[in-house]
Amino acid sequence: MKILEERIRREGQILSDTVLKVDSFLNHQVDTGLALEIGREFGRIFADEGITKVLTIEASGIQFAMAAGIALGVPFVYAKKKKAITQGDEVYSAEVYSFTKRESYQVSISRKYLGPEDRVLIVDDFLATGAALVGLTDIVAESGAELAGVGCVIEKSFQEGRGLLEERGIRVHSLARIAAMSPGQVQFIDEESFVH
Amino acid sequence: MKILEERIRREGQILSDTVLKVDSFLNHQVDTGLALEIGREFGRIFADEGITKVLTIEASGIQFAMAAGIALGVPFVYAKKKKAITQGDEVYSAEVYSFTKRESYQVSISRKYLGPEDRVLIVDDFLATGAALVGLTDIVAESGAELAGVGCVIEKSFQEGRGLLEERGIRVHSLARIAAMSPGQVQFIDEESFVH
Repeated sequence: MKILEERIRREGQILSDTVLKVDSFLNHQVDTGLALEIGREFGRIFADEGITKVLTIEASGIQFAMAAGIALGVPFVYAKKKKAITQGDEVYSAEVYSFTKRESYQVSISRKYLGPEDRVLIVDDFLATGAALVGLTDIVAESGAELAGVGCVIEKSFQEGRGLLEERGIRVHSLARIAAMSPGQVQFIDEESFVH
Repeated sequence: MKILEERIRREGQILSDTVLKVDSFLNHQVDTGLALEIGREFGRIFADEGITKVLTIEASGIQFAMAAGIALGVPFVYAKKKKAITQGDEVYSAEVYSFTKRESYQVSISRKYLGPEDRVLIVDDFLATGAALVGLTDIVAESGAELAGVGCVIEKSFQEGRGLLEERGIRVHSLARIAAMSPGQVQFIDEESFVH
Protein backbone atom coordinates (compact mmCIF):
# COMPACT_ATOMS: atom_id res chain seq x y z
CA MET A 1 0.00 0.00 0.00
CA LYS A 2 1.92 2.93 -1.39
CA ILE A 3 0.49 5.76 0.73
CA LEU A 4 1.28 3.76 3.85
CA GLU A 5 4.86 3.04 2.79
CA GLU A 6 5.41 6.72 1.95
CA ARG A 7 4.02 7.76 5.31
CA ILE A 8 6.34 5.30 7.10
CA ARG A 9 9.32 6.67 5.17
CA ARG A 10 8.34 10.26 6.01
CA GLU A 11 7.16 9.96 9.62
CA GLY A 12 8.33 6.61 10.98
CA GLN A 13 11.10 6.80 13.55
CA ILE A 14 13.55 3.94 13.29
CA LEU A 15 15.16 3.62 16.71
CA SER A 16 17.20 0.48 15.94
CA ASP A 17 17.33 -2.42 13.48
CA THR A 18 14.13 -3.78 15.02
CA VAL A 19 12.23 -0.86 16.62
CA LEU A 20 10.03 1.32 14.40
CA LYS A 21 7.82 4.01 15.96
CA VAL A 22 4.77 5.08 14.00
CA ASP A 23 3.00 6.80 16.86
CA SER A 24 2.45 10.09 15.03
CA PHE A 25 -0.09 8.55 12.65
CA LEU A 26 -0.91 4.92 13.49
CA ASN A 27 -0.81 3.86 17.13
CA HIS A 28 -0.83 6.77 19.57
CA GLN A 29 -1.98 9.68 17.45
CA VAL A 30 -4.11 8.17 14.70
CA ASP A 31 -4.76 9.67 11.26
CA THR A 32 -8.42 8.67 10.95
CA GLY A 33 -8.46 9.13 7.15
CA LEU A 34 -5.48 6.81 6.72
CA ALA A 35 -6.95 4.29 9.18
CA LEU A 36 -10.19 4.21 7.14
CA GLU A 37 -8.15 3.67 3.95
CA ILE A 38 -6.30 0.81 5.64
CA GLY A 39 -9.66 -0.72 6.55
CA ARG A 40 -10.87 -0.38 2.96
CA GLU A 41 -7.73 -2.16 1.74
CA PHE A 42 -8.37 -5.10 4.11
CA GLY A 43 -11.97 -5.01 2.90
CA ARG A 44 -10.83 -5.32 -0.73
CA ILE A 45 -8.34 -8.13 0.00
CA PHE A 46 -10.80 -10.23 2.00
CA ALA A 47 -13.99 -9.19 0.14
CA ASP A 48 -14.85 -12.70 -1.10
CA GLU A 49 -14.17 -14.53 2.15
CA GLY A 50 -17.61 -14.18 3.73
CA ILE A 51 -16.15 -12.61 6.88
CA THR A 52 -18.66 -12.37 9.75
CA LYS A 53 -16.36 -10.89 12.38
CA VAL A 54 -13.06 -9.04 12.69
CA LEU A 55 -10.89 -9.97 15.68
CA THR A 56 -8.05 -7.93 17.17
CA ILE A 57 -6.27 -7.30 20.45
CA GLU A 58 -6.36 -4.18 22.62
CA ALA A 59 -5.24 -1.50 22.31
CA SER A 60 -3.39 -0.63 19.11
CA GLY A 61 -5.30 -3.02 16.85
CA ILE A 62 -8.68 -1.47 17.65
CA GLN A 63 -8.64 1.41 15.15
CA PHE A 64 -7.78 -0.96 12.29
CA ALA A 65 -10.30 -3.62 13.32
CA MET A 66 -12.89 -0.84 13.47
CA ALA A 67 -11.90 0.37 9.99
CA ALA A 68 -11.95 -3.18 8.56
CA GLY A 69 -15.30 -3.84 10.24
CA ILE A 70 -16.70 -0.66 8.69
CA ALA A 71 -15.42 -1.71 5.24
CA LEU A 72 -16.78 -5.26 5.53
CA GLY A 73 -20.01 -4.25 7.27
CA VAL A 74 -19.41 -6.57 10.25
CA PRO A 75 -18.74 -6.14 13.99
CA PHE A 76 -15.32 -6.53 15.53
CA VAL A 77 -14.24 -8.07 18.80
CA TYR A 78 -11.10 -7.06 20.67
CA ALA A 79 -9.31 -9.51 22.91
CA LYS A 80 -8.56 -8.11 26.35
CA LYS A 81 -5.27 -8.31 28.17
CA LYS A 82 -5.70 -9.30 31.83
CA LYS A 83 -8.99 -10.08 33.48
CA ALA A 84 -11.25 -7.31 34.76
CA ILE A 85 -13.65 -7.78 37.65
CA THR A 86 -16.70 -7.43 35.40
CA GLN A 87 -15.51 -10.21 33.08
CA GLY A 88 -16.86 -13.68 33.88
CA ASP A 89 -15.03 -16.99 33.59
CA GLU A 90 -16.56 -17.96 30.30
CA VAL A 91 -13.70 -16.87 28.10
CA TYR A 92 -11.32 -18.30 25.53
CA SER A 93 -7.78 -17.35 26.46
CA ALA A 94 -4.17 -17.65 25.38
CA GLU A 95 -0.82 -16.72 26.92
CA VAL A 96 1.24 -14.13 25.01
CA TYR A 97 4.78 -12.88 25.60
CA SER A 98 5.37 -9.21 24.77
CA PHE A 99 8.95 -8.53 23.66
CA THR A 100 8.30 -4.79 23.88
CA LYS A 101 7.07 -4.86 27.46
CA ARG A 102 9.17 -7.91 28.41
CA GLU A 103 6.33 -9.67 30.19
CA SER A 104 3.70 -12.31 29.58
CA TYR A 105 0.03 -11.54 29.66
CA GLN A 106 -3.23 -13.38 29.15
CA VAL A 107 -5.44 -12.44 26.21
CA SER A 108 -9.06 -13.46 26.38
CA ILE A 109 -12.38 -13.01 24.70
CA SER A 110 -15.84 -13.91 25.86
CA ARG A 111 -17.12 -17.22 24.47
CA LYS A 112 -20.35 -15.42 23.59
CA TYR A 113 -18.74 -13.48 20.76
CA LEU A 114 -17.02 -16.19 18.73
CA GLY A 115 -18.30 -19.60 17.65
CA PRO A 116 -18.51 -22.20 14.87
CA GLU A 117 -20.88 -19.98 12.87
CA ASP A 118 -18.18 -17.31 12.44
CA ARG A 119 -15.67 -16.71 9.68
CA VAL A 120 -12.96 -14.52 11.14
CA LEU A 121 -10.46 -11.98 9.88
CA ILE A 122 -7.74 -11.20 12.43
CA VAL A 123 -6.32 -7.66 12.17
CA ASP A 124 -3.42 -6.05 14.01
CA ASP A 125 -1.06 -3.10 13.66
CA PHE A 126 2.26 -5.01 13.63
CA LEU A 127 3.38 -8.48 12.60
CA ALA A 128 6.83 -9.07 14.08
CA THR A 129 7.45 -12.04 16.38
CA GLY A 130 3.86 -13.11 15.78
CA ALA A 131 3.33 -13.87 19.47
CA ALA A 132 0.06 -11.98 19.87
CA LEU A 133 -1.30 -13.14 16.52
CA VAL A 134 -0.52 -16.80 17.19
CA GLY A 135 -2.40 -16.38 20.49
CA LEU A 136 -5.41 -15.02 18.61
CA THR A 137 -5.33 -17.89 16.08
CA ASP A 138 -5.34 -20.34 19.02
CA ILE A 139 -8.44 -18.59 20.37
CA VAL A 140 -10.16 -18.82 16.97
CA ALA A 141 -9.32 -22.54 16.73
CA GLU A 142 -10.63 -23.14 20.25
CA SER A 143 -13.91 -21.38 19.41
CA GLY A 144 -14.59 -23.60 16.39
CA ALA A 145 -14.78 -20.53 14.10
CA GLU A 146 -13.09 -20.60 10.71
CA LEU A 147 -10.09 -18.34 10.23
CA ALA A 148 -10.16 -16.64 6.82
CA GLY A 149 -6.82 -14.90 7.27
CA VAL A 150 -4.66 -12.38 9.07
CA GLY A 151 -4.29 -8.76 7.96
CA CYS A 152 -1.49 -6.63 9.39
CA VAL A 153 -0.75 -3.00 8.79
CA ILE A 154 3.05 -3.28 9.06
CA GLU A 155 5.11 -6.43 8.85
CA LYS A 156 8.72 -6.72 9.95
CA SER A 157 9.47 -9.44 7.43
CA PHE A 158 12.91 -10.06 8.91
CA GLN A 159 11.26 -11.43 12.07
CA GLU A 160 9.64 -14.83 12.44
CA GLY A 161 5.94 -13.89 12.70
CA ARG A 162 4.86 -14.53 9.11
CA GLY A 163 6.64 -17.89 9.07
CA LEU A 164 4.89 -19.02 12.26
CA LEU A 165 1.49 -18.17 10.80
CA GLU A 166 2.15 -19.63 7.36
CA GLU A 167 3.39 -22.88 8.94
CA ARG A 168 -0.14 -23.19 10.30
CA GLY A 169 -1.58 -22.77 6.81
CA ILE A 170 -2.86 -19.26 7.48
CA ARG A 171 -3.23 -16.65 4.73
CA VAL A 172 -1.32 -13.51 5.75
CA HIS A 173 -1.60 -10.06 4.15
CA SER A 174 0.42 -7.11 5.33
CA LEU A 175 -0.01 -3.67 3.81
CA ALA A 176 3.62 -2.60 4.28
CA ARG A 177 6.33 -5.28 4.47
CA ILE A 178 9.69 -4.17 5.78
CA ALA A 179 12.60 -6.26 4.46
CA ALA A 180 15.22 -4.46 6.54
CA MET A 181 15.67 -1.23 8.46
CA SER A 182 18.27 0.77 10.31
CA PRO A 183 18.20 4.32 11.72
CA GLY A 184 17.31 6.60 8.80
CA GLN A 185 16.62 3.77 6.35
CA VAL A 186 13.75 1.44 5.59
CA GLN A 187 13.51 -1.06 2.74
CA PHE A 188 10.15 -2.49 1.73
CA ILE A 189 9.39 -5.79 0.01
CA ASP A 190 7.54 -5.20 -3.23
CA GLU A 191 4.23 -7.00 -2.60
CA GLU A 192 3.66 -7.68 -6.31
CA SER A 193 6.77 -9.81 -6.58
CA PHE A 194 5.41 -12.25 -4.00
CA VAL A 195 2.80 -14.92 -4.40
CA HIS A 196 0.52 -15.61 -1.43
CA MET B 1 -29.72 9.21 21.58
CA LYS B 2 -32.73 6.95 21.19
CA ILE B 3 -31.17 4.03 19.27
CA LEU B 4 -28.46 3.81 21.92
CA GLU B 5 -30.94 3.84 24.81
CA GLU B 6 -33.01 1.15 23.12
CA ARG B 7 -29.94 -0.99 22.57
CA ILE B 8 -28.93 -0.61 26.23
CA ARG B 9 -32.44 -1.67 27.32
CA ARG B 10 -32.36 -4.65 24.97
CA GLU B 11 -28.79 -5.89 25.33
CA GLY B 12 -27.26 -4.26 28.38
CA GLN B 13 -26.70 -6.58 31.33
CA ILE B 14 -27.28 -4.90 34.66
CA LEU B 15 -25.28 -6.87 37.20
CA SER B 16 -25.98 -4.59 40.17
CA ASP B 17 -27.10 -1.04 40.99
CA THR B 18 -23.80 0.26 39.59
CA VAL B 19 -22.45 -2.30 37.10
CA LEU B 20 -23.76 -2.27 33.53
CA LYS B 21 -22.20 -4.53 30.90
CA VAL B 22 -22.54 -3.47 27.29
CA ASP B 23 -19.87 -5.75 25.90
CA SER B 24 -22.07 -7.31 23.22
CA PHE B 25 -22.19 -4.08 21.20
CA LEU B 26 -19.97 -1.33 22.65
CA ASN B 27 -16.81 -2.36 24.45
CA HIS B 28 -15.72 -5.92 23.73
CA GLN B 29 -17.71 -6.85 20.66
CA VAL B 30 -18.36 -3.57 18.83
CA ASP B 31 -21.25 -2.85 16.45
CA THR B 32 -19.31 -0.75 13.93
CA GLY B 33 -22.45 0.82 12.45
CA LEU B 34 -23.63 1.98 15.88
CA ALA B 35 -20.13 3.23 16.76
CA LEU B 36 -20.08 5.33 13.56
CA GLU B 37 -23.51 6.75 14.44
CA ILE B 38 -22.23 7.63 17.92
CA GLY B 39 -19.31 9.43 16.29
CA ARG B 40 -21.65 11.35 14.01
CA GLU B 41 -23.69 12.42 17.03
CA PHE B 42 -20.57 13.79 18.77
CA GLY B 43 -19.72 15.44 15.45
CA ARG B 44 -23.10 17.19 15.37
CA ILE B 45 -22.93 18.30 19.01
CA PHE B 46 -19.42 19.74 18.75
CA ALA B 47 -19.59 20.82 15.08
CA ASP B 48 -19.06 24.53 15.78
CA GLU B 49 -16.24 24.14 18.27
CA GLY B 50 -13.31 24.12 15.85
CA ILE B 51 -12.03 20.81 17.24
CA THR B 52 -8.52 19.94 16.01
CA LYS B 53 -8.06 16.71 17.94
CA VAL B 54 -10.06 14.05 19.76
CA LEU B 55 -8.51 12.61 22.92
CA THR B 56 -9.41 9.35 24.63
CA ILE B 57 -7.89 6.64 26.80
CA GLU B 58 -7.07 3.06 25.83
CA ALA B 59 -8.71 0.71 25.26
CA SER B 60 -12.50 1.05 25.29
CA GLY B 61 -12.56 4.71 24.26
CA ILE B 62 -10.68 4.10 21.01
CA GLN B 63 -13.58 3.04 18.78
CA PHE B 64 -15.59 6.12 19.77
CA ALA B 65 -12.66 8.52 19.42
CA MET B 66 -12.05 7.00 16.00
CA ALA B 67 -15.71 7.49 15.05
CA ALA B 68 -15.75 11.09 16.36
CA GLY B 69 -12.48 11.80 14.53
CA ILE B 70 -13.99 10.46 11.30
CA ALA B 71 -17.08 12.64 11.77
CA LEU B 72 -15.06 15.78 12.57
CA GLY B 73 -12.30 15.07 10.03
CA VAL B 74 -9.52 15.24 12.63
CA PRO B 75 -7.00 12.80 14.15
CA PHE B 76 -7.42 11.30 17.58
CA VAL B 77 -4.87 10.53 20.28
CA TYR B 78 -5.28 7.81 22.87
CA ALA B 79 -3.66 8.09 26.26
CA LYS B 80 -1.73 4.99 27.24
CA LYS B 81 -1.91 3.22 30.57
CA LYS B 82 1.54 2.27 31.88
CA LYS B 83 4.80 3.09 30.17
CA ALA B 84 6.12 0.88 27.35
CA ILE B 85 9.81 0.54 26.59
CA THR B 86 9.47 2.32 23.24
CA GLN B 87 7.85 5.36 24.87
CA GLY B 88 10.26 8.19 25.79
CA ASP B 89 10.12 10.43 28.83
CA GLU B 90 8.57 13.37 27.06
CA VAL B 91 5.01 12.74 28.12
CA TYR B 92 2.18 14.46 29.94
CA SER B 93 0.81 12.13 32.58
CA ALA B 94 -1.82 11.81 35.30
CA GLU B 95 -2.60 9.23 37.99
CA VAL B 96 -5.98 7.50 37.73
CA TYR B 97 -7.71 5.10 40.12
CA SER B 98 -9.82 2.40 38.46
CA PHE B 99 -12.75 1.30 40.63
CA THR B 100 -13.42 -1.63 38.27
CA LYS B 101 -9.90 -3.00 38.44
CA ARG B 102 -9.25 -1.69 41.98
CA GLU B 103 -5.83 -0.29 41.19
CA SER B 104 -4.14 2.95 40.23
CA TYR B 105 -2.44 3.42 36.91
CA GLN B 106 -0.61 6.16 35.08
CA VAL B 107 -2.12 7.58 31.90
CA SER B 108 0.20 9.43 29.57
CA ILE B 109 0.41 10.96 26.15
CA SER B 110 3.41 12.15 24.20
CA ARG B 111 3.98 15.92 24.39
CA LYS B 112 4.37 15.93 20.62
CA TYR B 113 0.69 15.27 20.03
CA LEU B 114 -0.98 17.95 22.14
CA GLY B 115 -0.15 21.64 22.49
CA PRO B 116 -1.48 25.22 22.76
CA GLU B 117 -2.54 25.17 19.09
CA ASP B 118 -5.09 22.41 19.77
CA ARG B 119 -8.76 22.53 20.58
CA VAL B 120 -9.66 19.22 22.12
CA LEU B 121 -12.75 17.04 22.43
CA ILE B 122 -12.35 14.28 25.03
CA VAL B 123 -14.38 11.15 24.29
CA ASP B 124 -14.89 8.01 26.37
CA ASP B 125 -17.29 5.10 26.66
CA PHE B 126 -18.42 5.61 30.27
CA LEU B 127 -18.77 8.59 32.61
CA ALA B 128 -19.18 7.24 36.14
CA THR B 129 -16.74 8.28 38.87
CA GLY B 130 -15.05 10.55 36.36
CA ALA B 131 -11.58 9.46 37.50
CA ALA B 132 -10.16 8.73 34.03
CA LEU B 133 -11.78 11.78 32.48
CA VAL B 134 -10.52 14.15 35.17
CA GLY B 135 -7.05 12.72 34.50
CA LEU B 136 -7.42 13.51 30.81
CA THR B 137 -8.60 17.07 31.51
CA ASP B 138 -5.49 17.55 33.69
CA ILE B 139 -3.36 16.42 30.75
CA VAL B 140 -5.12 18.85 28.40
CA ALA B 141 -4.60 21.70 30.88
CA GLU B 142 -0.92 20.82 31.26
CA SER B 143 -0.46 20.84 27.47
CA GLY B 144 -1.84 24.36 27.09
CA ALA B 145 -4.51 23.11 24.65
CA GLU B 146 -8.07 24.38 24.95
CA LEU B 147 -10.70 21.88 26.07
CA ALA B 148 -13.92 22.24 24.06
CA GLY B 149 -15.80 19.59 26.00
CA VAL B 150 -16.25 16.00 27.02
CA GLY B 151 -18.44 13.53 25.12
CA CYS B 152 -19.40 10.23 26.74
CA VAL B 153 -21.40 7.38 25.30
CA ILE B 154 -23.04 6.29 28.57
CA GLU B 155 -23.30 8.31 31.77
CA LYS B 156 -24.18 6.87 35.14
CA SER B 157 -25.74 10.10 36.30
CA PHE B 158 -26.12 8.78 39.85
CA GLN B 159 -22.33 8.81 40.25
CA GLU B 160 -20.14 11.84 40.79
CA GLY B 161 -18.34 12.11 37.43
CA ARG B 162 -20.46 14.78 35.74
CA GLY B 163 -20.36 16.94 38.86
CA LEU B 164 -16.56 16.77 39.05
CA LEU B 165 -16.25 17.87 35.43
CA GLU B 166 -18.89 20.60 35.61
CA GLU B 167 -17.25 22.02 38.74
CA ARG B 168 -14.27 22.69 36.50
CA GLY B 169 -16.45 24.55 34.02
CA ILE B 170 -16.35 21.77 31.44
CA ARG B 171 -19.14 21.20 28.93
CA VAL B 172 -20.29 17.56 29.21
CA HIS B 173 -22.48 15.69 26.71
CA SER B 174 -23.50 12.08 27.22
CA LEU B 175 -25.55 10.22 24.64
CA ALA B 176 -27.36 8.01 27.17
CA ARG B 177 -27.79 9.22 30.75
CA ILE B 178 -28.81 6.64 33.29
CA ALA B 179 -30.71 8.07 36.26
CA ALA B 180 -30.94 4.76 38.10
CA MET B 181 -30.64 1.07 37.43
CA SER B 182 -31.12 -2.30 39.07
CA PRO B 183 -31.09 -5.84 37.68
CA GLY B 184 -33.63 -5.92 34.84
CA GLN B 185 -34.38 -2.19 34.98
CA VAL B 186 -32.77 0.98 33.64
CA GLN B 187 -34.15 4.49 33.81
CA PHE B 188 -32.81 7.21 31.51
CA ILE B 189 -32.77 10.95 32.04
CA ASP B 190 -34.59 12.68 29.22
CA GLU B 191 -31.85 14.84 27.64
CA GLU B 192 -34.34 17.39 26.30
CA SER B 193 -35.52 18.36 29.76
CA PHE B 194 -31.99 19.44 30.71
CA VAL B 195 -30.16 22.62 29.80
CA HIS B 196 -26.42 22.36 29.20
